[in-house]
Amino acid sequence: MKKEIKEKNIKFFVTNADALADKYNLRGKINNIIAWYMLKMLGVKGEDSVKFKENIKEMYRDKGENIVNANLNVLDESIDYLREFAFNIFSETKDQEKKRDINSEMLHRRGNMLKVSDFLDHSDGTFEGGTSASDKRKVSNKVPKWCKENCIECNQCAFICPHAIIKPFSITEEELNNSLITKEDTIPSLGENNKGFYLGINTDNCTGCGLCTKVCPGKNGEKALIMEESSNKTDIICDYLNNNIKNETPFSKFTVKGIGFNKPVFEFPGACAGCGETVYLRTLTELYGKEIVIANATGCSSIYGASLPCTPYKIPWISSLFEDNAEFGLGIHTAYKTARDRVKEIMIETKDEVDKNVKDIFKTWIDNIEDSNITLEVKNQLEKANIRTDLKELIDYIPSRKVWIVGGDGWAYDIGFGGLDHVLRTNENIKILVLDTEVYSNTGGQTSKSTRVGAVAEFASTGKLKPKKDLFQIGMSIPNVYVASISAGANMNQTIKAFKEANEHNGPSLIIAYSPCIAHGIKGGLSNSVEEQKLLVESGYNILMRYNPINKELSIDSKEPNFQIYETVFAKEMRYKNLESINPKLYEKLYIENMNNAKNRYEYYHNLSKNKEVNKEEKTISKKEYL
Amino acid sequence: MKKEIKEKNIKFFVTNADALADKYNLRGKINNIIAWYMLKMLGVKGEDSVKFKENIKEMYRDKGENIVNANLNVLDESIDYLREFAFNIFSETKDQEKKRDINSEMLHRRGNMLKVSDFLDHSDGTFEGGTSASDKRKVSNKVPKWCKENCIECNQCAFICPHAIIKPFSITEEELNNSLITKEDTIPSLGENNKGFYLGINTDNCTGCGLCTKVCPGKNGEKALIMEESSNKTDIICDYLNNNIKNETPFSKFTVKGIGFNKPVFEFPGACAGCGETVYLRTLTELYGKEIVIANATGCSSIYGASLPCTPYKIPWISSLFEDNAEFGLGIHTAYKTARDRVKEIMIETKDEVDKNVKDIFKTWIDNIEDSNITLEVKNQLEKANIRTDLKELIDYIPSRKVWIVGGDGWAYDIGFGGLDHVLRTNENIKILVLDTEVYSNTGGQTSKSTRVGAVAEFASTGKLKPKKDLFQIGMSIPNVYVASISAGANMNQTIKAFKEANEHNGPSLIIAYSPCIAHGIKGGLSNSVEEQKLLVESGYNILMRYNPINKELSIDSKEPNFQIYETVFAKEMRYKNLESINPKLYEKLYIENMNNAKNRYEYYHNLSKNKEVNKEEKTISKKEYL
Repeated sequence: MKKEIKEKNIKFFVTNADALADKYNLRGKINNIIAWYMLKMLGVKGEDSVKFKENIKEMYRDKGENIVNANLNVLDESIDYLREFAFNIFSETKDQEKKRDINSEMLHRRGNMLKVSDFLDHSDGTFEGGTSASDKRKVSNKVPKWCKENCIECNQCAFICPHAIIKPFSITEEELNNSLITKEDTIPSLGENNKGFYLGINTDNCTGCGLCTKVCPGKNGEKALIMEESSNKTDIICDYLNNNIKNETPFSKFTVKGIGFNKPVFEFPGACAGCGETVYLRTLTELYGKEIVIANATGCSSIYGASLPCTPYKIPWISSLFEDNAEFGLGIHTAYKTARDRVKEIMIETKDEVDKNVKDIFKTWIDNIEDSNITLEVKNQLEKANIRTDLKELIDYIPSRKVWIVGGDGWAYDIGFGGLDHVLRTNENIKILVLDTEVYSNTGGQTSKSTRVGAVAEFASTGKLKPKKDLFQIGMSIPNVYVASISAGANMNQTIKAFKEANEHNGPSLIIAYSPCIAHGIKGGLSNSVEEQKLLVESGYNILMRYNPINKELSIDSKEPNFQIYETVFAKEMRYKNLESINPKLYEKLYIENMNNAKNRYEYYHNLSKNKEVNKEEKTISKKEYL
Repeated sequence: MKKEIKEKNIKFFVTNADALADKYNLRGKINNIIAWYMLKMLGVKGEDSVKFKENIKEMYRDKGENIVNANLNVLDESIDYLREFAFNIFSETKDQEKKRDINSEMLHRRGNMLKVSDFLDHSDGTFEGGTSASDKRKVSNKVPKWCKENCIECNQCAFICPHAIIKPFSITEEELNNSLITKEDTIPSLGENNKGFYLGINTDNCTGCGLCTKVCPGKNGEKALIMEESSNKTDIICDYLNNNIKNETPFSKFTVKGIGFNKPVFEFPGACAGCGETVYLRTLTELYGKEIVIANATGCSSIYGASLPCTPYKIPWISSLFEDNAEFGLGIHTAYKTARDRVKEIMIETKDEVDKNVKDIFKTWIDNIEDSNITLEVKNQLEKANIRTDLKELIDYIPSRKVWIVGGDGWAYDIGFGGLDHVLRTNENIKILVLDTEVYSNTGGQTSKSTRVGAVAEFASTGKLKPKKDLFQIGMSIPNVYVASISAGANMNQTIKAFKEANEHNGPSLIIAYSPCIAHGIKGGLSNSVEEQKLLVESGYNILMRYNPINKELSIDSKEPNFQIYETVFAKEMRYKNLESINPKLYEKLYIENMNNAKNRYEYYHNLSKNKEVNKEEKTISKKEYL
């Protein structure tokens, strides 16, 4: 490439469009600047240039004169922000070549030079986990800085961060003595004597979405997190603490305050800045990381889950096709069950051949076969014990492990729905998480059966006419299925509660997780998505619910909606708002339809939550019940 | 084959096992006789022979001593019924070879001798329709005989006949004069002056199921149809009348009395004797044959629908895969709509170029685009008219034609469910017929999600533990979907009504048609399936319902169930009864569970039928509504 650039005398420019946009309070909005460069490079001038500017005036007209002018000013100033690169800059990377390991080669974009033989260690299809940590992307020049004097240790920032770069640490005096920081860098750890609280920030992997500062309640009106120029001194501290301290806390892991102290097993996913999906995967993995396997459908979650060689996961995670992920997860579950049945058989067969204490361990395992802590402990004990070879070979199956099936709405509502329905009806102890963005996000915004009336999307360019499919109702109609509808930004505690109940339920569980997405076009960008999620719940657009199939109780966790503010939803999200300029009459009509659907939906569930007898009583009989 | 038989000195026997079974009142039950021959051929004797007989005693013990003895006697007498064939018998067929057309070659089992070039006329994948008529199977030696003196012309026999061999004819005096029968062979045609009523019977294609005699009300206790030795003189008459008379009737085609007078376009399917599915396809095709296209999923219906070269259909019928039939039908529908949109465009483009009367015809078509009679008439008129070539090429798309998507429960509830859900949510004018046997019939009786608690099936050998999936409820939860639950043997008129409403509804329709099947093991065989269907409805096992999405009205067409007789269902069907001997305790438990599900199901729908407000009001907006 360098050779070609030289030979063809190609000019190479860089620009700091971000800085220019910032100057005019258009943070992150660099699209028009880049388009303008393109036009200039193509030699467009005169009247065509004018047309482009006219178009901008038209496009931003209803956002007010200031926004229009700012967008025009950045164009005029843009050429000043170009810097030409001299050719010799390219030779500098030459000495940086590293040892030839495939991850590194791919990270350095030399993947296509690898030989088949380089992959010998991966012939079973598995790859190392947690490799995202080595992909220091440094994509944002503004990153959060912790102002400890304003921190109340609520840990909402760590909870909401889409890229898992923020981590709370609770450090003993002894640990502090050996660390890169001193007691002065910390504040007293709440609820504990003599421990220091420190908020670690991996700025290298920050995308600058700003969600952390938005959720920060701060103290006396001052935020404990502010966005400023990047400096990665905190990365080293954060990595050190992560690897070297115990990080114990008196707070339950099932609280927003406590969950972040767990060792992360899902870090630095390469999702969009402000992605609304990853918070759910972080919650799931921080609660149950070592006890689960994830089967992942094609979609955004498979891209940020494994863009080889980078994966944010340090736990077993397997990618499947779009159309069969539920069946795929069921297969993993079944294989796991079968292996554990064999473990049980071997234990019974050999119980009189083994030492007395090993026999007791067998009994403990059989009596607590689904308990993740006890079964893990049994594994540790049996690793050292004298047991039959075939049992030794199955030792990885001794810990209890649940399969979580994960995918987007394109998978769950549409292409993989047949399988999802099938899995929910098996009455197996299997879990499903739907990351619902109400649109095919990864493939460019096509309408799915989760998209609501009035939303503009691919295949619904003049607003969708069909209502959203009600997956909650479908789940609830299937015997012994736990169902939850959650929205992390609207209610973090309810999100944690739902994951806990779903994982503990002895049967299939379905979590429908509302996930804000760039495709929604939220005004001001995804940094406003927490506020937006609250609005969606307050207005009745979303209802936070949990359905327990054991006692057939439907709990509505959100307050009675205020439909008076429903219009704000449409005004604030471009997926809806866009229709107004195309067809104002239809916009009005579909807005009302969308709201009526929400009203009827609320009424329906509200009635169900009061009247436990409305549901049909059809149950699945467990094998235990008659054996 | 003949050469090999000769060279290897293979002995070849035939037997009239039917006659032997009849002698001991075991009509049709030839399985033990054949098994006995097999044992003898394998050289089994002495103690092993005794074991087989002991086994028979055990098997039929609870059916009484008479049945046991009859089954033993047939064995003892069976060898006398064997006749050895001399080799020269095989040479007789030599001269019967016919003109080399592929249908005939296949029928004569010489299909594997055909060359690729023989299929040149079928390179587009289409085959001639109605070819089942040439497959005179003559499989039953007892066939119905019409006793006209006892006939009340109710035509229930014609309606219920699974193989469409019975047809009512209403014949004018003039037609009679030229026909193969005289006025004396007929009875006065009800509701018409001087016309004769004749019941045509194609005995060659009768399977001897006897359903016709079972449904015949007869007169003064005497049946108008009795089963007797076959003689195919009535076939010739039936074929003649079918081809040569107008067969007009004053009775509406939407009545059991009137429907059979239509020219059949679905005749002689090669289904099992007594098949409970074909009655629905006969009803559908007799009502709307020329106005529909059928997209058929893999299953029984694709086997009896097209075992090349035989197909019972004389209308467009297309077979798809198991997993995608709904999507396939949607594709046909979409292609058809697109072609018709183009027709409309051409008409508008050329309206001022054509003759005044042609212009009027265009207008008539555009104004009545969905009316099947008017659009068919327009096609006939335009065939002779002077119109643009591209319109002429699209002339087959001028008649309105609906797509009916057909398949079994294995398709609809399981493997094709994702697509079925998708199609129902399109709000397109498309129709779905589910032939629900509550089991994978064609592949040998595997449990489907339609199978109920307690049924013994493959993959549920000790009784199914999960409840039947409620497809009616699912259909009803989707905006603008018409849903009907029917059972032809229980209520013929409701079946016709449901097809009429489903076809007329402007939107997706779903008919769930309960279909008795050999896999149910109904006591006494499928000739008792009409009585059984009535029992299933009376006991509350099945509910006959129609849901109209326009006014959200659910009509329950069956009477309030009598759950007191629910036990009879289990006693009468071997799919349930079988479990009693395997595990009586579980049988009792699952019986109660099955009944409770039925009770709760009835209560649920009964409440809905009273309270029209329970359903969520979510609608799909039609394009018309805003255009």
